Amino acid sequence: MNVRGRPMRTIWAAGDGVEIIDQTALPHELLIRPLRTLDDAAQAIRTMQVRGAPLIGAAAAYGMWLAMRADPSNAGLESAGRTLLSTRPTAVNLRWALDAVTAELRALPAAERAAAARAVADRIADADVAVNRAIGDHTLPLLREIAARRQGGARLNVLTHCNAGWLATVDRGTALAGVYAAHDAGLPIHVWVDETRPRNQGASLTAWELDQHGVPFTVIVDNAGGHLMQRGQVDAVVVGTDRTTAAGDVVNKIGTYLKALAARDCGVPFYVAAPSSSIDWTIDDGRAIEIEERSPAEVTAIAGRTAAGAVAAVTLTPAGAAAGNPAFDLTPARLVTGIITERGIAAASAEALAALFPAESGRP
Amino acid sequence: MNVRGRPMRTIWAAGDGVEIIDQTALPHELLIRPLRTLDDAAQAIRTMQVRGAPLIGAAAAYGMWLAMRADPSNAGLESAGRTLLSTRPTAVNLRWALDAVTAELRALPAAERAAAARAVADRIADADVAVNRAIGDHTLPLLREIAARRQGGARLNVLTHCNAGWLATVDRGTALAGVYAAHDAGLPIHVWVDETRPRNQGASLTAWELDQHGVPFTVIVDNAGGHLMQRGQVDAVVVGTDRTTAAGDVVNKIGTYLKALAARDCGVPFYVAAPSSSIDWTIDDGRAIEIEERSPAEVTAIAGRTAAGAVAAVTLTPAGAAAGNPAFDLTPARLVTGIITERGIAAASAEALAALFPAESGRP
Repeated sequence: MNVRGRPMRTIWAAGDGVEIIDQTALPHELLIRPLRTLDDAAQAIRTMQVRGAPLIGAAAAYGMWLAMRADPSNAGLESAGRTLLSTRPTAVNLRWALDAVTAELRALPAAERAAAARAVADRIADADVAVNRAIGDHTLPLLREIAARRQGGARLNVLTHCNAGWLATVDRGTALAGVYAAHDAGLPIHVWVDETRPRNQGASLTAWELDQHGVPFTVIVDNAGGHLMQRGQVDAVVVGTDRTTAAGDVVNKIGTYLKALAARDCGVPFYVAAPSSSIDWTIDDGRAIEIEERSPAEVTAIAGRTAAGAVAAVTLTPAGAAAGNPAFDLTPARLVTGIITERGIAAASAEALAALFPAESGRP
Repeated sequence: MNVRGRPMRTIWAAGDGVEIIDQTALPHELLIRPLRTLDDAAQAIRTMQVRGAPLIGAAAAYGMWLAMRADPSNAGLESAGRTLLSTRPTAVNLRWALDAVTAELRALPAAERAAAARAVADRIADADVAVNRAIGDHTLPLLREIAARRQGGARLNVLTHCNAGWLATVDRGTALAGVYAAHDAGLPIHVWVDETRPRNQGASLTAWELDQHGVPFTVIVDNAGGHLMQRGQVDAVVVGTDRTTAAGDVVNKIGTYLKALAARDCGVPFYVAAPSSSIDWTIDDGRAIEIEERSPAEVTAIAGRTAAGAVAAVTLTPAGAAAGNPAFDLTPARLVTGIITERGIAAASAEALAALFPAESGRP
């Protein structure tokens, strides 16, 4: 999407390596960081300079390219895969991308591996963009329909949680793909951006990318969305997902469940944008999914821009205070209006998802 | 309650004036600030050095004492009332306390007004403590009953939102009065403290006061409570209220509604501690209550302690980002398990509240 008026992706091959937007510097600085080696790529994933499941997958694939340039031997291939996998061991797309690259390279002589790795990485990146574009295309009619019901061109209000925008992918985003499609089609769309504590991906990343592309938005604290829904100020909630079960239970950033409850209570449709790569066909009941507990320091301290323009962390709690930090929660399928995939929109049920993905679901 | 092992109130007469805990310095510093004049008192209320409806009322009453020492004339009396009322024009307790003091002083000769004002202020402060103690006494059996059902002395988990502790009152608190009663009675109580964005009263004030009194607690982001309830880690939610209608609709800090929805969805009891002074007998339907929209700067920036030990604000959003900041939301009576008043616990209905307060409700 656009940055300062020009199209940009989150990762791209450039000259003799890869370049990324360092997302840890956003929203305060647009920092383009070159990756030249396997270690550069592993470090970028580990420190969350790149984050978001689809983008992590693409970054790992490009990391394999960088690794193969230095050591295309069988030992080098296996070692690079292990190094990259260890950066975010629970990320499903990371393993998937590494398996895809490694399988293809194993069959090739060492001398051809670097070029092949680059080609696979480009293919993975382009495929992500195509999937997201399709999700956007399927979301647009939903938003058009809501807009058509509004009196006198009143703005169309979408609430989103966390960052499921283009910064979480290679381009276009998942939950925000439809928002960009609607904006680019001229619909008067406005986004309520949950700040998304504790890591504030909404206030920093979603706000930044909407701002750069010119989509009107308003940042709110995570507490505010229910009130806005009660007052009729939200037309639809659209969020992403880290993992969706075969039966439509949705694991997403902590706090998603609360917004789904409010949406149901207030009669607001609640959509989940889910590329099929995020659907776990092996599980029906989301309660079986373990929820990652992250560092308490993400709760007790927060980083921002000081008056002097530097980025600094400040502590919010009494010294020594205990903090809990579950990273995700479960939104049961019963609260989900629809799951927007690259093949169309399904009800949040095993039957509806299997009808769109007969081969993947194993329920043809 | 205890601070560094010694009992303390939030406001008290001392020597030739009043002293307060400056809550804007918490949790990073315990700063005792003397108030010597009307302007000192008005400034303390306006800048939220003292906050919380019951405490604001007491602070205003003490402010009248300080004013009467300087100018006990009729003109001085009326002018002092106006000055204090303008500090937080929407605070119900502020007007109530000022009306009470002013009515009593008008009937007295000027020379007697200062001493009388001090006596009324002391009475208002002591009455607040007595009301809160009664709320705690009524909460304790609820918590005992939950604790009795736990296996092998497992801890009793209460979740609270914002600060309805002793810092919001003269002493003991409203929602936390029962927590302190339970802790002091030896129950193994633990509190999940919602940080309560945007002003973070939970992370700063509730965490600080529980810590000082020795009650175990864990700070969580506002997004986390629903997940904890899904996983059976919350036994009860207890919150305060800014204003409760005669029919039991509850206006409280933004985000309360989301926790009430999660509590209902997960079968967790949801209690509201409401001194009768916070019940608005003139309104049944909470939707009629206007919700204050506060400064966007509370959302886009946050203050905390820097590594160097200073307190500084940092900006969280892209430069120029719009932010919305509704300060309260409405929890409909249907989501409230019970309202804990100084006279006992009522169902959240006009009939049940009127049965406890026949005279006040006008429905004897």
